[in-house]
Amino acid sequence: MRFILVDWGTTRFRGFLVEDGAITGRVSADEGVSALKGGDHPGVFRRHCGPWLEAYPDAPVALVGMVGSREGWTVAPYAPCPAGPADIARALIPVDLGGGRMGRIVPGAVCEVEPGAVDVMRGEETLALGAGVADGLVCLPGTHPKWVEMRGGRIHRFATYLTGEAYDLFRNHSMVGRPATEPEDPAGFDLGLDAAGRNAGEAEPVLRSAGIEAPRARRAGLLHLLFGARAATVTGRLPPAQLGPYLSGLLTGDEINGALSLFPAPEAMTIVAGSPRADLYVRALARRGIEARIKSPEEALIAGLGLILAQG
Amino acid sequence: MRFILVDWGTTRFRGFLVEDGAITGRVSADEGVSALKGGDHPGVFRRHCGPWLEAYPDAPVALVGMVGSREGWTVAPYAPCPAGPADIARALIPVDLGGGRMGRIVPGAVCEVEPGAVDVMRGEETLALGAGVADGLVCLPGTHPKWVEMRGGRIHRFATYLTGEAYDLFRNHSMVGRPATEPEDPAGFDLGLDAAGRNAGEAEPVLRSAGIEAPRARRAGLLHLLFGARAATVTGRLPPAQLGPYLSGLLTGDEINGALSLFPAPEAMTIVAGSPRADLYVRALARRGIEARIKSPEEALIAGLGLILAQG
Repeated sequence: MRFILVDWGTTRFRGFLVEDGAITGRVSADEGVSALKGGDHPGVFRRHCGPWLEAYPDAPVALVGMVGSREGWTVAPYAPCPAGPADIARALIPVDLGGGRMGRIVPGAVCEVEPGAVDVMRGEETLALGAGVADGLVCLPGTHPKWVEMRGGRIHRFATYLTGEAYDLFRNHSMVGRPATEPEDPAGFDLGLDAAGRNAGEAEPVLRSAGIEAPRARRAGLLHLLFGARAATVTGRLPPAQLGPYLSGLLTGDEINGALSLFPAPEAMTIVAGSPRADLYVRALARRGIEARIKSPEEALIAGLGLILAQG
Repeated sequence: MRFILVDWGTTRFRGFLVEDGAITGRVSADEGVSALKGGDHPGVFRRHCGPWLEAYPDAPVALVGMVGSREGWTVAPYAPCPAGPADIARALIPVDLGGGRMGRIVPGAVCEVEPGAVDVMRGEETLALGAGVADGLVCLPGTHPKWVEMRGGRIHRFATYLTGEAYDLFRNHSMVGRPATEPEDPAGFDLGLDAAGRNAGEAEPVLRSAGIEAPRARRAGLLHLLFGARAATVTGRLPPAQLGPYLSGLLTGDEINGALSLFPAPEAMTIVAGSPRADLYVRALARRGIEARIKSPEEALIAGLGLILAQG
């Protein structure tokens, strides 16, 4: 099977020619949807992928990501969870590529994480479906990491965390990150994970296994722990070179605190990310007794789209 | 008793002439310590308070706040908790005001909130001592709100939250706040408090009183709830005019989640703040079954300094 796939996000346009699951052509540009106006999209698409359209007149064309948002080409309404390949395939939205050719925009997904609490994704639904997990937990790190609970090969529900964006705000635009120095000392990451343990909501396993009962659930609050990073630096307890990685560990650790409360804690799970980010999650999850497998985002994207298009 | 008091923070210089606990003169300028260089301080002080120095040659002079930090006039090392008026009085740091006159800088306070976790304050120690609470909990809202546990008239320990600064970052500099519109609809604040309940760490009282056991502790994670504010807006569940107050309610509610976990939950407590901020805390605390009394920051400052200077 041959298809043309565009991963068209806020800041990047990435086109792939895929044949029998292997990438045989690729193109990339910084013409993300945030850089474009309404009406720009067909021209940008043809400029980058026109040669593939002509060479393979029968290849289906799929577009994934923010291209289906209000800021994109055409709105592809969110598919409600549970959402599997067949549900997503039924919700594909056609767009006119010109020259009598049609493309299809993959919709995002929407779910009620908890009663009354809604969450949305756009693009990650395809990666989650392609992560190779029929039943279990998948994490997709990034600016806005997604944790996805898969059941029977479908996205059952998911939760988004603001981790990456919050790191940038606190590290680079806040009083908290101001004392930080570079080059960074990566040892700060594990200390940040330790700090997140103060917000893990339960007595530390090490205390309990030693027969020491913590006086109450540990949930000092993320807003307190963030100020604590500064307090530790200005009192000389945390070297300024460790502050950046400390904030990363603290925020990643608190994301994991939340996700392991919302979702059934697994013995093993899958992380869809490249190095070094995936390795940091592997380390953080190992401390919680969870074995993490790593899946490449590009492989997950191609596999996920293959599953959707295979629905006919 | 007559004294001259300067509350000299990061952005403001505020001088008071105090006689028998009443303010009989005041001066204010935007010459906070962040706007000054080393060596500027005596001149700025004399320009604003010189007439009082001459009129009252015996009045003690005290300086409170960031003026005692590394960025200030002279470093006044943090007093360790527990810290009462006598402890603070012993740690006052003299500075030369010129003309043979000396002033004294009030030190901040440092404490170990939990084993291994340090916190600091500078300026709020004086307000906490003057809040009129010998034993109990005091909250000082602001850019970096402080929760202070008082025991026997001394600051026993305290915790700082990043609430005000985080609100500014997420409302004005993040993807989360981007859909927000003005004029704001204040009804969003209570909805934000509701959302914070998803991170309160325990089954909702209303569920428990109805005999319904929540499946597990509620701690979805603040980073998830922040993204949820955006998800609720883009899916049309939260009107854009409510988003700003919603973020304020969410962050304030999660500050309270954390503080009521760290400190013994009281039946009543004291909020040192003016309107409308104090009223929002009163409302948020009432939902947790806590009655809040309001104390004016200026009264607390004058009373606290009076207690410190009365130590001789």
